[in-house]
Amino acid sequence: MSSTSAFLPSVSPTPRTRALAENPRLASRAIELLQTFQAFVRLDADDARCVVAYLREVAYARGALLFAAGDQSSSSYLLLLLEGEVSVDAGSTGAREAVPISVLGAGSVLGEMALLDGAPRSATCTALSDIQAAGLSRRGLERLIDEHPKVAAKLLAGLLQRMSERLRALGEQLALYGQVSRP
Amino acid sequence: MSSTSAFLPSVSPTPRTRALAENPRLASRAIELLQTFQAFVRLDADDARCVVAYLREVAYARGALLFAAGDQSSSSYLLLLLEGEVSVDAGSTGAREAVPISVLGAGSVLGEMALLDGAPRSATCTALSDIQAAGLSRRGLERLIDEHPKVAAKLLAGLLQRMSERLRALGEQLALYGQVSRP
Repeated sequence: MSSTSAFLPSVSPTPRTRALAENPRLASRAIELLQTFQAFVRLDADDARCVVAYLREVAYARGALLFAAGDQSSSSYLLLLLEGEVSVDAGSTGAREAVPISVLGAGSVLGEMALLDGAPRSATCTALSDIQAAGLSRRGLERLIDEHPKVAAKLLAGLLQRMSERLRALGEQLALYGQVSRP
Repeated sequence: MSSTSAFLPSVSPTPRTRALAENPRLASRAIELLQTFQAFVRLDADDARCVVAYLREVAYARGALLFAAGDQSSSSYLLLLLEGEVSVDAGSTGAREAVPISVLGAGSVLGEMALLDGAPRSATCTALSDIQAAGLSRRGLERLIDEHPKVAAKLLAGLLQRMSERLRALGEQLALYGQVSRP
């Protein structure tokens, strides 16, 4: 992940990762959290175990910058938070101009937008505590679609449902601003 | 689709539909538009033809209310716009309080959020002209996942990419409001 502008703060280097399955405690946490995706088609325990085989263990220390808004996400991956909290801020990454969106905890997904479209990161994500996460790369997702298309479809439906929740929340925030700014 | 509150305007009744494949002109327009989904995995012509078999032809007259914000979407379906334009407004459906989000044209997808989570419609969609659209019901999507999981996964990836674009646009709008409201 390389910054293309001198104005962007450095994103913390992607830490060394290993297959999530090599960490049984985190793997079973991921299996549990993947089953909470509330889409109309749900990942069952077998599906979740199948997904876990495509995930990498990723850890960040408190204060680490996971993604910076505007950063070109050349090595795209999404993260499923397993432990810890991350703050999400929109707009410029300068602290003065940051617009706080939310604090995400275990079970939250982040980074999926850049994974999907390869566009620059839309928000700045900072670790509020030490973070344990499961990473899914674009290549991993492509392999999952090829090798287990039905599980992949369920995972994508779950991601869509999560994104839909965020769109609803942002829409409500926007409607609120609209009302506030109206005389 | 039934309104649960007396304050909600009536949504135009879902028009009678028929299989999209019975209208060769609209079916081939849908095949063309489905291939423009810019996800990292793309629907090719065969995939798009496969999807079309699960779509219904839906028409609305100019001025029709397709969805009303807050409406319980008991019969969930998403629409792929084939011809015509639709305005999308957030917040309350009262004209005075509506916050315009955007105008959508051919190739746009709407209604997918309620399809995914069964929650009330998040926005009000009004036909700005006569509309031709392709409808996909939740049952249709479930059947597509069962019968053609790989095509379903590609379609869902495409929907995710579309939703991701909208999240980016809303985030930017929100950041703008944040800057405007700052002294």
